[in-house]
Amino acid sequence: MTTNTTAIDERTHERKFVRTFFTTPTAVEGGDDSAKMLESAIQLRGMQAPDVWVPDNEDATAPNMREEGVENIVDVLSKHGAEFPGEIHPRVVWHRDDPGTRYRGFRHMLELTDPENGAVEHLDGFVIPEVGDIDDWKKADEFFTIIEDEHDLEEGSLKMSVIIESGAAELAMGKLREEMGKPTNNLQRLFLLVDGEVDYTKDMRAITPTGGLPKWSELRHNTSRAASAAGLIAVDGPYDDIRDVEGYHERMTDNQSKGMLGIWSLTPGQVVEANRAPLPPREGYWLFDADGREVELEREGGRQVYTGDRVSLREDGDEYVLSVGGDELGIDAEELHEELLDLLAYVPSLDDIVDSMEEFEAAKEAGKGAIAMTQSATVVIDGIDVEISRDRMWDEATYQALQTPIALFQDVYENRPDQHGDLAELYDESVLERAMNVGN
Amino acid sequence: MTTNTTAIDERTHERKFVRTFFTTPTAVEGGDDSAKMLESAIQLRGMQAPDVWVPDNEDATAPNMREEGVENIVDVLSKHGAEFPGEIHPRVVWHRDDPGTRYRGFRHMLELTDPENGAVEHLDGFVIPEVGDIDDWKKADEFFTIIEDEHDLEEGSLKMSVIIESGAAELAMGKLREEMGKPTNNLQRLFLLVDGEVDYTKDMRAITPTGGLPKWSELRHNTSRAASAAGLIAVDGPYDDIRDVEGYHERMTDNQSKGMLGIWSLTPGQVVEANRAPLPPREGYWLFDADGREVELEREGGRQVYTGDRVSLREDGDEYVLSVGGDELGIDAEELHEELLDLLAYVPSLDDIVDSMEEFEAAKEAGKGAIAMTQSATVVIDGIDVEISRDRMWDEATYQALQTPIALFQDVYENRPDQHGDLAELYDESVLERAMNVGN
Amino acid sequence: MTTNTTAIDERTHERKFVRTFFTTPTAVEGGDDSAKMLESAIQLRGMQAPDVWVPDNEDATAPNMREEGVENIVDVLSKHGAEFPGEIHPRVVWHRDDPGTRYRGFRHMLELTDPENGAVEHLDGFVIPEVGDIDDWKKADEFFTIIEDEHDLEEGSLKMSVIIESGAAELAMGKLREEMGKPTNNLQRLFLLVDGEVDYTKDMRAITPTGGLPKWSELRHNTSRAASAAGLIAVDGPYDDIRDVEGYHERMTDNQSKGMLGIWSLTPGQVVEANRAPLPPREGYWLFDADGREVELEREGGRQVYTGDRVSLREDGDEYVLSVGGDELGIDAEELHEELLDLLAYVPSLDDIVDSMEEFEAAKEAGKGAIAMTQSATVVIDGIDVEISRDRMWDEATYQALQTPIALFQDVYENRPDQHGDLAELYDESVLERAMNVGN
Repeated sequence: MTTNTTAIDERTHERKFVRTFFTTPTAVEGGDDSAKMLESAIQLRGMQAPDVWVPDNEDATAPNMREEGVENIVDVLSKHGAEFPGEIHPRVVWHRDDPGTRYRGFRHMLELTDPENGAVEHLDGFVIPEVGDIDDWKKADEFFTIIEDEHDLEEGSLKMSVIIESGAAELAMGKLREEMGKPTNNLQRLFLLVDGEVDYTKDMRAITPTGGLPKWSELRHNTSRAASAAGLIAVDGPYDDIRDVEGYHERMTDNQSKGMLGIWSLTPGQVVEANRAPLPPREGYWLFDADGREVELEREGGRQVYTGDRVSLREDGDEYVLSVGGDELGIDAEELHEELLDLLAYVPSLDDIVDSMEEFEAAKEAGKGAIAMTQSATVVIDGIDVEISRDRMWDEATYQALQTPIALFQDVYENRPDQHGDLAELYDESVLERAMNVGN
Repeated sequence: MTTNTTAIDERTHERKFVRTFFTTPTAVEGGDDSAKMLESAIQLRGMQAPDVWVPDNEDATAPNMREEGVENIVDVLSKHGAEFPGEIHPRVVWHRDDPGTRYRGFRHMLELTDPENGAVEHLDGFVIPEVGDIDDWKKADEFFTIIEDEHDLEEGSLKMSVIIESGAAELAMGKLREEMGKPTNNLQRLFLLVDGEVDYTKDMRAITPTGGLPKWSELRHNTSRAASAAGLIAVDGPYDDIRDVEGYHERMTDNQSKGMLGIWSLTPGQVVEANRAPLPPREGYWLFDADGREVELEREGGRQVYTGDRVSLREDGDEYVLSVGGDELGIDAEELHEELLDLLAYVPSLDDIVDSMEEFEAAKEAGKGAIAMTQSATVVIDGIDVEISRDRMWDEATYQALQTPIALFQDVYENRPDQHGDLAELYDESVLERAMNVGN
Repeated sequence: MTTNTTAIDERTHERKFVRTFFTTPTAVEGGDDSAKMLESAIQLRGMQAPDVWVPDNEDATAPNMREEGVENIVDVLSKHGAEFPGEIHPRVVWHRDDPGTRYRGFRHMLELTDPENGAVEHLDGFVIPEVGDIDDWKKADEFFTIIEDEHDLEEGSLKMSVIIESGAAELAMGKLREEMGKPTNNLQRLFLLVDGEVDYTKDMRAITPTGGLPKWSELRHNTSRAASAAGLIAVDGPYDDIRDVEGYHERMTDNQSKGMLGIWSLTPGQVVEANRAPLPPREGYWLFDADGREVELEREGGRQVYTGDRVSLREDGDEYVLSVGGDELGIDAEELHEELLDLLAYVPSLDDIVDSMEEFEAAKEAGKGAIAMTQSATVVIDGIDVEISRDRMWDEATYQALQTPIALFQDVYENRPDQHGDLAELYDESVLERAMNVGN
C-alpha cells in the first residue's frame, strides 16, 4: 500500500522483503457485524500490522458469505485503505479443477477493482489459491489482464500472488523464469509464492499418525528457490497452533535457513512474532550444544555461564574431565578449547553485524580482500572459566551472504515508518542509524 | 485384477491407492519346481495378498531363466489368474542404455499378452525397470501400443509402471504432466511410480560407510509429487532386512508423511505389514517425547501412564519440578500443562477419525465453516495426575487433508473383499460401516 | 592433466571421479612474490595434490590483481604444468547479471589459451562461477567455442565446470541432459558441477542466527542428480573452518551418501583429508548407536568392546537387563541379540569389500544369482560377551551398488601414479592388487 492514493499506477515502492502475510475473514454470518474483523485488521499499526494483509474471501470465509465478503472488502478499503501501512492483497476463490470457481473468482476481482467502488487505489493485487500447472497460472494472469483493460488500469499493475498447494503447482514454480518472459502473458506481475501446507498435504495424500502436518522441507526449499530464480518472495503457510509461540519461532528459524523469510500469520499476535523474527537480536548471545540440546548460555558480567546438568567439567591435576551425557573425556587445556569450540556458537546482535560489516568495508577500502573476524568469550562450566576464541575469514562473498538481515532491516525501515517506534524500542538509536548506512 | 474374465477391455475398477507391491521370482533353476514360487504367490488371499502382484522376470530371476520365466507366468496366470484378488503386473527386462535388453523385454511382453496363451485377461499391465529420461519412457510406451495393436487389445488398456532407479528417471517424473497429453504417445497408461533405491544408489554413485542404503528423502518426495501432479501412485522400493519389522514400519511412516502410501514387499509377511500400515489403529493412544525418544504411554483405566526414567515429575510446594534428561524445570501448574502439551501427541483410532469427520460434517450442514476439536487426557508421571487438553480448529481444508486415511480405507474395502474378514478382526463392525459412509 | 604434453587434443584419459577441487589465489599484492602460492600449489604431489587444481582468478584474488593473476597462471603453467599429476582448471570471472564481468572472463580465457604463451597444453578447462539459467551457461560455452576456433584447438576440447551459486543455476541443472544434445552448443564440454554455498546463501537470501551456512541438502541432492543424469561429476563447496577436521569428514560422509564424492579444498591439509575420505578404511570396525550417539567399538583381540556409560548391560537370572539412556529393558538372550543388531553396524575395510565382491563373482560364475553374506562379531558390554550375527542378501544390484568405492579406488590408482606410495602405506600390497582386478 502506498500513501499516494491518487491512482494505482503511481505506486512507487516495491517491497523486496515480506515478513508477514496476515489473513482475515471477509464476512461472518449474523448480519451487521459481518465486516468487524476486516475493520479491526485494517486499523492495525506498527508491529501488529503485517507487511501484506489478505482479506481472505476463500477458506477463512464461509462459501455462502463470499459475495457479502466482496462488498465488505470494498467498504472497508474505501474507508480505511489510504492509511494502512502494508500492502493489501485480497484472496479470491480459484481452483485448478473447477471452471465455475475460477469464473466466480474473476467476477469478485472485477468487482473489487471497479473504479466506482473506490477500493482499487488501495489494492496492490490478489492472492490466487489452489493453482495447478503453469497453464492454470496463465488463466489467472489473463483475468488480471482483462480486468486491468476493463478498468483502465496499467497492464501488469495488479500483483498476483499464488498459494502453492498441489504437486502440479510445486512443479510449475520451476518454470517461472522461462515463462515470465513470454509475449502472451503478464506473469511479471507475480509477487508472492505462498506455501499452503494443509491443502498440499491433501493433494499429496500424505498421512501422519497424529494428523499433524508433515514438515514438507523439499516444498519449502523449492518455493524459496523459485523465488530466488524469478525475483519473487517466498512465504510459508499458516502455523495453526496459535498458542505455541516457541514452535512458531522454530518454524521461522528453519524457514529462514532456507531463504523463506515470510510466514503466514493467523492473529495479530502471530504478526508481531513474525515481523520481529528475521530481525537480529538487540544483544548477542552464545548457544551451547548440551548433549544434543541447544541452550543459551547465561551472561553474568562478561562471562557466559552454563547452568545445566547435561555437561559437566572438573579439573584433574593438569587435565580436565569433560562429561557430556554419560561419556567422560580426559583432555588437556588445548583439547578442551577445541571440544568447547565445537559445542559453542555465537548469535550476533544487530550491533555486532553492523560492526563486522563496517570493519570489512574499511578493510576493503584499504585494499584488503579478506580479513579474520574474531569471536571470543569466557565460558563457565561448573565454576571453571575457559577462554574461547575463534576466527572466521570474511571475504566479499561472506560479506554479501551475511548482508541479508541488514537488507531486510533497511527494507522494513524504509517502507514501514509505522514501525519506527517499535524499532527504537528494540534497538539503540545509534545502531539504527549505522544499520541504515552500512552496505550501500 | 478384475473378476470379470471375459475381456481385458471390460475392466471396470481402477485402484486409487496401492499399499503393496509384491515381487516373486518367475523361475528358479532345477527343473519341475521352477514355477513353485509363482504358484504359491498367486494363491495368497486376504492381508497376505498384495494390491499389486509382480511376477518378477528381471532382477529376482536369473538371466538364463527368463524365457522359462515367461512360460511360467503364462501357465500360472491362465490357471489361477481369475481368482487373484489384486492386480497383476509382471516386471520384464529393460535398460535405458541397452537396446538388446529393451527388445528382449518387448518380446516377453508380446508373448505374455498373446491371446492364445490365456494369460492376458488376467494381466493388468507391466512394470518397466531401469527407465531413463522421458524419451526412454516413450520407447517403452510405444512397445505397449504395438502390442495392443498386434493383439487387438484396446489402445492404452495395458498399464505401465516404472521403476525409478536413475537420476534421469527422477528428472523425467517432473515432465509427466505435460508429456502425458501429447498426441504421439499413450503415456496415460502410466500407473505406478516405484522407487528402486538399490540401483538408484549405484546410478548416483553414492557411498555409505556400512554399505547401507542412503535415505534418499528427496527422491521419495519427488516421486510422490510426480504422482500427485500426474494422477499416479507412488510406491517405495524394497526394504531388504526382512526380519526388521520395526524398521519397515518406521520407513512406511516416513513414506506416508511424504504421500508415498505404497511400498515394495519381498515376503508375504512384509505384505501383511504393508497392507495394514496405512490403516488407522483400532485404539487411539498418546505419544510422549521423552527427552528425544518417542514412547507410547500405557493406558491404565482412563489414565495415560509414563513409566520410563527419562522424564520425572515431583511436587514442590505449590510448584512442580519437571526433569527432562538432565535438566530440571521448576514451574507452576499452568506452565506444566504447557510443557506437557508440547511433549504429547495423540494418535487417533479409526473410530476417532470417523467421529471427528461426522462432527465436522454436521457442523457444516448447520452452516458452520470451522469448529474446535478437543483432545484431552489424564497423564500420569511418577504418580502425579495431570489433566491435559488441547483444541484444534478444523475447517474444510483440515477436514479434507485428514480424509486421506478414510479414502484409502474405503478404496481397500471396495476393491479387496478378500480382506473383509481381516478388517472385521481389526475393527468393530459398527466402525466399518460408519467409515464407509463418511466423507461422501 | 595428461602427461602427454604435445597437444591439448591428444589428451586421452578422462577422470570418472574427482575427489578434490583445490583453489589457489593467482596473485597477491606486494610485487615479486605474487605467484608464490601458485608455484607452491603446482608442485604438490601425492595425497597433497588434488585431482583438480584451480588457480582461482575470481574470489580468492583481489579484483585489481586479476590481470596479473592471468600472467602468473601462464608463467607457472608453462614452467611446471607438464609435471602436475592432476587436472588444471583455472577459475575466471563471470556473472550472470554483468556483461562486463563476462567479457573480462572471456578475455582472460583467450589469453590463457594463447598457444604462444605455452600454458594451454597443460590446461584442461575453465571453471565458470556465478552462472544463471541455462541460456547463461550457453553464453559461457559459446566463448569456449570461439576460443577453441581462434586458437585452433579441437572444438569441445576445453572442459567447462560451473559453480552453482544461484537458484537459477540449480534449476538449470535439471535441463542439462536435454540441452547437451542440441546442435547450437557444445555443452558436452561440461565436466564438474560445483556447489558454491556462500554465494548461494546470498542468492537465496537465507539467514541463520549464527551466520553459519545452512546445510542445503536439497541443493546437494539436485547437483548429484544432475551429475548422474548428464554424465558429470558433483563437487561440494568449501568448508571454511579449516581447523575442524572432524566437521569436514562429517560433511564428506553426508555428501557421499548423496553421490557427491568430490569436495572443495582450501588447503593442502584439506586436500589430504578429501583425497582419502572416499577410500575404504584399512581395517573394518563396528559402529554402535549408544542412545543416539554413534561410537566406534574398541577392538580387543577378536572382541568388540563398548566402554561408554550410555548403554549398560547386566545379567539377571536367565534374563538380561539392557539399559539405554534412562530406559531399562528386561529381555531374554534372543531379544538381546535383536536389540543389539539394531544398534550395531559394520564398516567394511577395503579387504572386506574385495572379499565380498570376489565371493559374489564366484557365486555368479557358479550360476547363483543371490548369496547371503554374513557379518558376525563378539560384542562386549560391561564385561558380558554377546555373539552377534547378521546375513545380508547380495544380488546383482547389491553387488553393483557396492562397487562404487572400488570403481573410485581403481580410477585413482590408474590416474594418480603419484599416490601409489600413499596407497601402499594405507593398504597391504596384496589387497591393492586384488582391488584392481575385482569387478571387471
